[in-house]
Amino acid sequence: MRDYGVVIGSLRPGAGNRITDVPGVQVGHCTLDDGPIKTGVTAILPHGGNLFQDKVLAVAHVINGFGKTTGTIQIEELGTIETPILLTNTLSVGQVSDALIAYMLEQNAEIGVTTGTVNPVVCECNDGYLNDIRGRHVQEQHVRVALSDAGSDFAEGAVGAGTGMSCYGLKGGIGSASRLIELDGNVYTLGVLVLSNFGRQQDFLLQGIPAGAMLDEMQRAEAIDEPDKGSIIFILATDLPLSERQLKRISKRCTVGMTRTGSFIGNGSGDVVIAFTTANRVQHEQSAAVISLQMLNENEIDLAFRATAEASEEAILNSLTAAKTTIGREGHLRKGLSEYLDAIIKQAKSRD
Amino acid sequence: MRDYGVVIGSLRPGAGNRITDVPGVQVGHCTLDDGPIKTGVTAILPHGGNLFQDKVLAVAHVINGFGKTTGTIQIEELGTIETPILLTNTLSVGQVSDALIAYMLEQNAEIGVTTGTVNPVVCECNDGYLNDIRGRHVQEQHVRVALSDAGSDFAEGAVGAGTGMSCYGLKGGIGSASRLIELDGNVYTLGVLVLSNFGRQQDFLLQGIPAGAMLDEMQRAEAIDEPDKGSIIFILATDLPLSERQLKRISKRCTVGMTRTGSFIGNGSGDVVIAFTTANRVQHEQSAAVISLQMLNENEIDLAFRATAEASEEAILNSLTAAKTTIGREGHLRKGLSEYLDAIIKQAKSRD
Amino acid sequence: MRDYGVVIGSLRPGAGNRITDVPGVQVGHCTLDDGPIKTGVTAILPHGGNLFQDKVLAVAHVINGFGKTTGTIQIEELGTIETPILLTNTLSVGQVSDALIAYMLEQNAEIGVTTGTVNPVVCECNDGYLNDIRGRHVQEQHVRVALSDAGSDFAEGAVGAGTGMSCYGLKGGIGSASRLIELDGNVYTLGVLVLSNFGRQQDFLLQGIPAGAMLDEMQRAEAIDEPDKGSIIFILATDLPLSERQLKRISKRCTVGMTRTGSFIGNGSGDVVIAFTTANRVQHEQSAAVISLQMLNENEIDLAFRATAEASEEAILNSLTAAKTTIGREGHLRKGLSEYLDAIIKQAKSRD
Amino acid sequence: MRDYGVVIGSLRPGAGNRITDVPGVQVGHCTLDDGPIKTGVTAILPHGGNLFQDKVLAVAHVINGFGKTTGTIQIEELGTIETPILLTNTLSVGQVSDALIAYMLEQNAEIGVTTGTVNPVVCECNDGYLNDIRGRHVQEQHVRVALSDAGSDFAEGAVGAGTGMSCYGLKGGIGSASRLIELDGNVYTLGVLVLSNFGRQQDFLLQGIPAGAMLDEMQRAEAIDEPDKGSIIFILATDLPLSERQLKRISKRCTVGMTRTGSFIGNGSGDVVIAFTTANRVQHEQSAAVISLQMLNENEIDLAFRATAEASEEAILNSLTAAKTTIGREGHLRKGLSEYLDAIIKQAKSRD
Repeated sequence: MRDYGVVIGSLRPGAGNRITDVPGVQVGHCTLDDGPIKTGVTAILPHGGNLFQDKVLAVAHVINGFGKTTGTIQIEELGTIETPILLTNTLSVGQVSDALIAYMLEQNAEIGVTTGTVNPVVCECNDGYLNDIRGRHVQEQHVRVALSDAGSDFAEGAVGAGTGMSCYGLKGGIGSASRLIELDGNVYTLGVLVLSNFGRQQDFLLQGIPAGAMLDEMQRAEAIDEPDKGSIIFILATDLPLSERQLKRISKRCTVGMTRTGSFIGNGSGDVVIAFTTANRVQHEQSAAVISLQMLNENEIDLAFRATAEASEEAILNSLTAAKTTIGREGHLRKGLSEYLDAIIKQAKSRD
Repeated sequence: MRDYGVVIGSLRPGAGNRITDVPGVQVGHCTLDDGPIKTGVTAILPHGGNLFQDKVLAVAHVINGFGKTTGTIQIEELGTIETPILLTNTLSVGQVSDALIAYMLEQNAEIGVTTGTVNPVVCECNDGYLNDIRGRHVQEQHVRVALSDAGSDFAEGAVGAGTGMSCYGLKGGIGSASRLIELDGNVYTLGVLVLSNFGRQQDFLLQGIPAGAMLDEMQRAEAIDEPDKGSIIFILATDLPLSERQLKRISKRCTVGMTRTGSFIGNGSGDVVIAFTTANRVQHEQSAAVISLQMLNENEIDLAFRATAEASEEAILNSLTAAKTTIGREGHLRKGLSEYLDAIIKQAKSRD
Repeated sequence: MRDYGVVIGSLRPGAGNRITDVPGVQVGHCTLDDGPIKTGVTAILPHGGNLFQDKVLAVAHVINGFGKTTGTIQIEELGTIETPILLTNTLSVGQVSDALIAYMLEQNAEIGVTTGTVNPVVCECNDGYLNDIRGRHVQEQHVRVALSDAGSDFAEGAVGAGTGMSCYGLKGGIGSASRLIELDGNVYTLGVLVLSNFGRQQDFLLQGIPAGAMLDEMQRAEAIDEPDKGSIIFILATDLPLSERQLKRISKRCTVGMTRTGSFIGNGSGDVVIAFTTANRVQHEQSAAVISLQMLNENEIDLAFRATAEASEEAILNSLTAAKTTIGREGHLRKGLSEYLDAIIKQAKSRD
Repeated sequence: MRDYGVVIGSLRPGAGNRITDVPGVQVGHCTLDDGPIKTGVTAILPHGGNLFQDKVLAVAHVINGFGKTTGTIQIEELGTIETPILLTNTLSVGQVSDALIAYMLEQNAEIGVTTGTVNPVVCECNDGYLNDIRGRHVQEQHVRVALSDAGSDFAEGAVGAGTGMSCYGLKGGIGSASRLIELDGNVYTLGVLVLSNFGRQQDFLLQGIPAGAMLDEMQRAEAIDEPDKGSIIFILATDLPLSERQLKRISKRCTVGMTRTGSFIGNGSGDVVIAFTTANRVQHEQSAAVISLQMLNENEIDLAFRATAEASEEAILNSLTAAKTTIGREGHLRKGLSEYLDAIIKQAKSRD
């Protein structure tokens, strides 16, 4: 989006302007794109080590709960994530969850024998407009591909879990952005990755420009008039030292970025935030009775709020800009925003 | 704001474009404006009858909890409001709450004798920049004046509890707006009243226009550079038939209107929504074991979400437009937005 | 438990003293009991019709969130259940969830095509002490068996999902109880089904009798000294007309029954309540914009609270009494309480 | 209660078996006992220093929200308490809150001038059966007396805010208990103070003994048959190092102690827990951007859960044992449990 001269907010982005700017965070995809099959898996790894042994502090926040994300009950009670976070389509959550369990059992022989079980975190959106979602085409092997593909470099747009998603009547999918936060001479990073699949075309705002209404006019008879359905998943990562309460407060500011793109958070949307900080770890085996934690001086938290709002808005816009036009099941079509972006920006400049 | 040609959203407003468009709802003020005393009380009555005997279905929603609103615990547990809702300054909540109890005891001789107690609902913002808030100047008589002043007609801006409030570095206060919702041939009304006292000037957006940045330039050396402090109270009233869960979902969409005006919901803000529907009543003395309730078909709720987002955004803008420039304690100054509005709109039109 | 003369509380149970006393509710099991395989599936159907089309009003309540129950986010947002509720072991949640999706797709050709997706509700406890849980032995066919087995008559104890569960160092599993509530001349039923898998033996209380301490003495060297791990799932069904808020309040009283059996709600426990009322239905396709709901006069709700506390306590005791001694993986042993019950009751009578 | 040979649980109490065993915690009372005036104020100080400058980490937990406690919104958002905690009767919350604000303003000249406002924490129960609650007899001076009376030594029973409270048809009021927790060679203390005003006489359980049913028989015609009304406030203090999330989990275990005394948590009860740890402090003026926090290894938290359950149960029983028979307004009578305790214990021993 920045390539088009659209700059969201005032804070500086990280080197790659994406979630993997947070040191250690990795993202991988497995894309299924074959005729009416338009779906996939995206994996976010909070760090490259053994997540079950070395958990990260985390929270979940439900913006609107018409969704099927799993794992949030335990995140909320214990304040930790102990698996990679997987994204996929709604009807594949069971299979992907099962594949994630299998992967975790392989890596940790003590689960279910000498220690307890494991809490798989799987988030989803409904890609049924483009994808043959009833076919439940995601298999265990696809989860493995996404996990082994994980690295600091990753694609955005119609890729991985984003392959079949729709957003504001356009092609949605994976998008990411990041912001740098300077405090006491240290530079911290806050990154957001979204799986965008929400919004009514007419409502779309691009940095305050009524881009949805413009699209309506440009497309005329072909303009899309559908209710606000779908969902959005936000994965928020940071190396800021935060307590769970602070992380929760920050995760609530993803809504700011979302509503700035035009949505009023529709009924049919499952909007969930999973947020973690790599700065506070919890060991599965911990001998000390008392452990140390770093948290932010609350008087400085506004900067993190602002970074979250900015990165969330930009991640959504980036998902739209990166996603290419896609034709899915039964000829269903979603256009890429990039096909209209120049025209929208030109029209915005000349509208008065 | 509509007088300046700024139209928020696509839904039609009610006859007065304010909360009292909802049949039965009344609003009254008592303004204290005397030198460094810039404060007051605003009363919202869900209906004109005995609220303790004839309660309205209600919810409370905390957007950001750096605030001291009282009464929310019981609203959440029992789903009802049984007193007028009073707004005032933060340090006067105790006195106003006590005055409201006195008023309720007078009207209901059985409270504390043959029946239980009563739950006073008092909301607040910190007007300490303009007002001598430490003086705690609000007395019981001022509460009585606000209550007896209540009617369907009421002033907006620097009046009642809004007398000393600040918003986006400008003069804030009381604002209101409403929207009509047509369903199955019936027309329902949803109205919002805000007490606005939040936001950093640079962040202010007017229908997508970066008005805060423009103000910065216009004011140059006098531009206000303060953190996002303060608070906002939303009172949402409707005659739509809703369950408590539905009312809660709707109340969460006030955030949409708030963030559209530029805020990222700052740390130092106590942002609370009190929402009620006059369509479902609960009698204090109820002999039947089972009672009937009307609720909305959930598939139609998007219209109410949209109405809430629009009315919330417009109510905030109306509070800014209506509030006149005010000089308070120690010469502290807040300018009225109306002094800049023509220039902002003109500049917006010519900026490209 | 009543067969042993232990009567919990003062309210009258339903005809079968179990959850299926609530008209229309059905329960079915599939038991996997083969050497180290000690697990299974239990299905609870709120009614015998098409649940996706004809949803029941429902809530979820997390007592302690060290658990992996799925489906709660949407239950909380929309207030409905639209699938059978399935219980199984922790590591089989993915597979069971996937099998439930397949079952729902079969029954509803429009899911994922002309309407949205479906929200599978799967609850779990960790049966890893007796069961080879890492083997993940539950397959799709077992889910189908449990669903087709569903009826008003069902077994309790070490059966279905309860096959491998442990409770207070004894054999746990499926237990149920019910209570009748008379209001305005109508008789309503409230029933509870538990999957019990929690508690430290020493803490076990049987109607105030320190049965756990007695067991400790009886078993001497073989007494079990383990931390409070595991979980408990409560399924609460009623035909009382309730709003979602009321159902939530009622579901919180399951804790009362749980703590009366001696638990202090340990850290390692995933304790979740799923509650529904058959008296308020929500149609997936609903043309009317406004729909009617029946709710309870709040002044009468204490009776439902008491019924919940009593049925919850008795359901747990019934799960212990009905479960037979079981030897599982690696010779792990859990004794049935029935082997000790006469001795405990005798000792309690003579202890002074 | 221990003086009667009744020992709750297995953990060792602190030196005084009360909340002030937690180093630094202070309690003070002001008792109003004059004919039909049976009320007062109780103050709990987390430490003896300036609480506004040196805040303690805290949470609030609502067990049942038919209550009017103030201050919980901000405690939940910011995780701190910055004033003494005051207890009083329901209709005096406004006055007491106002008096607490005045006290805080006196101590902190910067509030409302160079810094924000202050969040008064006031909890309440309805003492209207014995007390002329409509008279609202608590004045600012009584708050000052309670605050200046605060120390490590304090009375229990019908004193301070407990003067007019009723519990299980008996005289209730202030009660306290504590437990010691040994971890890694360090000894920590967890203390609970209750204001007890809940429960139906017939439900009262004394360590599993159906004491309420016995009282019913003893009193015959004079036996009290009233619904479960009123409330209970739990103040939980500890010097265990805990995060806010952990403190929240612990505060939920107060319910265990409450239900063990026989209550099923009635509708008409406002049951609230305020919990704080003195081990983690937050400075109002904090220059460092990152601050350190100590938290408990989650695997050790069961001990704190058990301590909370035990101390909560014993604090309630102590409030009943310490409270003397009281005659209040219109000759209303509440008997002290101590008048019946020998008979109950004797009967329990001989009942079989």
